[in-house]
Amino acid sequence: MTETFRVWAPLPQRVRVLVAGVEHEMVRSPDGWWESTVDSAGAGSRYGFLLDDAAEPIADPRSLSQPDGVHGLSAVYHHTYEWADHAWTGRTLPGGVIYELHIGTFTPEGTLDSAIEQLSHLVELGVDFVELMPMNAYNGVWGWGYDGVLWYAVHQPYGGPDALKRFVDACHQRGLGVLLDAVYNHLGPSGGHLDEYGPYFAGRTIWGPTLNLSGPDSDEVRRYVLDNVTSWLRDFHIDGLRLDAVHALSDNRAVHLLEEMAVEVESLSAYVRRPLTLIAESDLNDPRLVTERSAGGLGLDAQWDDDIHHCLHTVLTGENDGYYADFGSIASLAVTLERAFFHNGTYSSFRRRHHGRPVDTLKTPGYRFLAYTCDHDQIGNRAAGDRPAATLSPGLLVTAAAIVLTSPYTPMLFMGEEWGSRTPFQFFSSHPEPKLIESTRAGRFAEFAQHGWKAEDVADPMDPATFQRSKLDWSDVDSEPYARTLQVYRDLIALRRRRPELSNPRLDQFHIDFNEDERWLVLHRGSLRVIVNLSLESRQLDLRATWILLASGESTVEDGVVRVPAESFAVVEVEG
Amino acid sequence: MTETFRVWAPLPQRVRVLVAGVEHEMVRSPDGWWESTVDSAGAGSRYGFLLDDAAEPIADPRSLSQPDGVHGLSAVYHHTYEWADHAWTGRTLPGGVIYELHIGTFTPEGTLDSAIEQLSHLVELGVDFVELMPMNAYNGVWGWGYDGVLWYAVHQPYGGPDALKRFVDACHQRGLGVLLDAVYNHLGPSGGHLDEYGPYFAGRTIWGPTLNLSGPDSDEVRRYVLDNVTSWLRDFHIDGLRLDAVHALSDNRAVHLLEEMAVEVESLSAYVRRPLTLIAESDLNDPRLVTERSAGGLGLDAQWDDDIHHCLHTVLTGENDGYYADFGSIASLAVTLERAFFHNGTYSSFRRRHHGRPVDTLKTPGYRFLAYTCDHDQIGNRAAGDRPAATLSPGLLVTAAAIVLTSPYTPMLFMGEEWGSRTPFQFFSSHPEPKLIESTRAGRFAEFAQHGWKAEDVADPMDPATFQRSKLDWSDVDSEPYARTLQVYRDLIALRRRRPELSNPRLDQFHIDFNEDERWLVLHRGSLRVIVNLSLESRQLDLRATWILLASGESTVEDGVVRVPAESFAVVEVEG
Repeated sequence: MTETFRVWAPLPQRVRVLVAGVEHEMVRSPDGWWESTVDSAGAGSRYGFLLDDAAEPIADPRSLSQPDGVHGLSAVYHHTYEWADHAWTGRTLPGGVIYELHIGTFTPEGTLDSAIEQLSHLVELGVDFVELMPMNAYNGVWGWGYDGVLWYAVHQPYGGPDALKRFVDACHQRGLGVLLDAVYNHLGPSGGHLDEYGPYFAGRTIWGPTLNLSGPDSDEVRRYVLDNVTSWLRDFHIDGLRLDAVHALSDNRAVHLLEEMAVEVESLSAYVRRPLTLIAESDLNDPRLVTERSAGGLGLDAQWDDDIHHCLHTVLTGENDGYYADFGSIASLAVTLERAFFHNGTYSSFRRRHHGRPVDTLKTPGYRFLAYTCDHDQIGNRAAGDRPAATLSPGLLVTAAAIVLTSPYTPMLFMGEEWGSRTPFQFFSSHPEPKLIESTRAGRFAEFAQHGWKAEDVADPMDPATFQRSKLDWSDVDSEPYARTLQVYRDLIALRRRRPELSNPRLDQFHIDFNEDERWLVLHRGSLRVIVNLSLESRQLDLRATWILLASGESTVEDGVVRVPAESFAVVEVEG
Repeated sequence: MTETFRVWAPLPQRVRVLVAGVEHEMVRSPDGWWESTVDSAGAGSRYGFLLDDAAEPIADPRSLSQPDGVHGLSAVYHHTYEWADHAWTGRTLPGGVIYELHIGTFTPEGTLDSAIEQLSHLVELGVDFVELMPMNAYNGVWGWGYDGVLWYAVHQPYGGPDALKRFVDACHQRGLGVLLDAVYNHLGPSGGHLDEYGPYFAGRTIWGPTLNLSGPDSDEVRRYVLDNVTSWLRDFHIDGLRLDAVHALSDNRAVHLLEEMAVEVESLSAYVRRPLTLIAESDLNDPRLVTERSAGGLGLDAQWDDDIHHCLHTVLTGENDGYYADFGSIASLAVTLERAFFHNGTYSSFRRRHHGRPVDTLKTPGYRFLAYTCDHDQIGNRAAGDRPAATLSPGLLVTAAAIVLTSPYTPMLFMGEEWGSRTPFQFFSSHPEPKLIESTRAGRFAEFAQHGWKAEDVADPMDPATFQRSKLDWSDVDSEPYARTLQVYRDLIALRRRRPELSNPRLDQFHIDFNEDERWLVLHRGSLRVIVNLSLESRQLDLRATWILLASGESTVEDGVVRVPAESFAVVEVEG
């Protein structure tokens, strides 16, 4: 049994691979790749690289398995998993509903295998995609995962690479696609050694070093990213990626990394014979991300739409500090729902400059934007990590959900939202290094101190209790008001599937009536109307309605007039 | 007589305007603009601003006139010049020939008024546009102008704002358009105070601080640039801008500054009822710059094409160091002429990465790229600032010119090229500050030391003799071989105008035959063929030629076979 080890390391003058305690000299090719074939090594063998005269080995940048964490040795991993998802032909994004979850807090055990046991809940809920927060290996045991340093490895506390395959396999057998959050814009603060291997870095973001995507020797750095994309989509059968904070990618090449990625993924899709999806998180409000390449765009499939979130959140909560300042009216919610972006060239008081660009609503289908009432960031980046459910009535929650789930956009739910869970989702981390513990804690407190928060009101990110507190409490689900909320979410998703008008992605056909003072909106969806009553009083609207398809309160129709109770919605059919 | 002074200065708490030695408090608007109306002031009044408790006034960022240089007071300037160019209806770029010149060295006097006296030379030469190197006010008396710090003012040693107007007026009356080199990517090292007024800066290039184009409060910074564009095009009747090093503009907004500029200039063109042109200098090899906005591009009119220069220069000289390393074959010249970019996604050994993107040769007319055998940078950034004419035969020079002047591209000449002037164009500067003198000198020597040059072989940029040495020697023009060279340039330009095949911009119709060993190329231009013999032997080619329209040597045609002497070209007609 032999194993060939390869690593790109143009910087060191000498590279040895340490396998089972024995050093082996590696041979360098002119392109900076080193290679060594080692006898008596194979799947499971622990190894690391010794650069120049280093005494301590470091992990393989392309390690797939880190049984002892990012500071430990890598383990040889072969793709010998026996897949059982042969019937899976993939799932395209249009019409789909996404469910974002964090493996560490989705179940009490916090593992991929335990998550499999909850998949029937998602199937009954009716979602199409599970979106996993980052799986890559990061420093410490628990965390959100955005501090990843070994991007190819599956975080061992979640179960490691085979567990991810079991999870994906299980999803596929239940008809669920799997999206994965991939972070290419920075590296975490501990356990990363890329810069010792080669010129991987160019500059820093506020979170850590960024990749050298367009400087000298950046071809191989781009391959590091692109091969990672292929690794997830081909070898782990993942159906698509959520690309974290693409605005922080620094690339001035004529072909942007994201465009190259989209081209490669399109090609890979033909090879694996499954649809593959790329979704960007972007704060640029630049439609070019999701514009087709033939029209000069980057050709990604979709992007997160924070403007819709901010409009919904401010209308529901009345909050208006920080980046919520420009939002808050029913009118801004309506116009944003119609146009995808609120800031489409308008002044952003938070950014203190004009921001964004209009979406061509004739050419751009709504499914290219993800709509959500909450997500891991919008909850977790609050001082207390409190969900909307912590302060809003169950009625208001499902009313907001009705907007998202009958909109032209791709709806996304955050785990537990569907039953109005009040479990917080706080920011937690578990760096073992005292210095990082202090800086992470201090950074968090300082950030919120700027907004007037006292340290004692901010969840301590380094306290293990913060992690424990953020684990979903599934014991709620069957009791009221949670069970009722869950039923409405299920009904909404089922109705969205049954009545194609409700997922019609055409933005040019999406019209909304609203009344600012009375706090209601009516979404026009073909012959259906979605009446959203955000006020504390019941509303009566003459819509020439014929019958009610779904309502969260005791709505009635009489002579075409719909009566919608306070903080509830109704989906009605109207005369043609 | 009153004068209203205005300045954007959000940073200081107090702003006074000093006019004729008297201080006047200014009043701040919420938008950060300060204003004061002063009696007994008007055109010519000297003024400056005192920020906070400053004792020394500094210049107006939007000053149009700096009679005593960038460290002196500003002078009120009114646009009262009496224009005489009423018959001028402008000139569009397609089909045009550009002539780049540096006012300080174009004539012995180095002024705009003395340049007017040489315009008849340009009219006889047949060019369409004069392109002026930067006119903005910079530190010192002479220099290239890229160290500008007061972008709205016309450098006083050139003659100041009225002189520029006289020059443009004179050009227009002679049928010449005027392009101006505008530097928006950085500020020079001395005399700039923008950062005292407001948040103008964000980061640095190797040349100096760069503008804050997409950070907080960048709206007004962008207006500083955009209003400067308007100032030149509307108030000075300039016909277009050459935008220096746009790859160094840092802007991540959904609407890039260059796109916003192109939109504004398009709108201004309708207002002034003249065609206006924007030409970028870019090292991105990104066709998006000149792609129409409706196709997802930025919609600039054209960009400089260094790849064509590098192909020509290496073929002519055999030089292959630094950024010339990837070029040098007749084949690469031919393929680059056919495709506009050599690096269109290929590996660049100079950049140590893949570079560029293909131009869509069906959709992109060739006039969107400027082709030249030399320019101020390609000459002046050499250690000795030596032109091709210093080492190449007059025959080879005109043969290279024939390629440019019969190509689908927009030909550009650099002053003096047209008679094969051997005057160097060296890098010169005249900072008065000892520290800057030393750092400029040391930087220059260090740069060339990297390439093995000894300091004594590098022209000293701070030596006044370097400036004097770079002034064009017009006494050459009437003697041989200069007069002969000039005649060939005139004939080529005249022929390009007479025979539209020669300026046909369609790249998809541009085909080139060549022979690497025999060092010849044949450019197919409709029923014309341009035979370019770069070798030291005469060549005979059977092209079914019927007659010779123009030749730089003693070419002959017999039975369709064209004989072209060594280092010469011939333009022939072939049987249909």
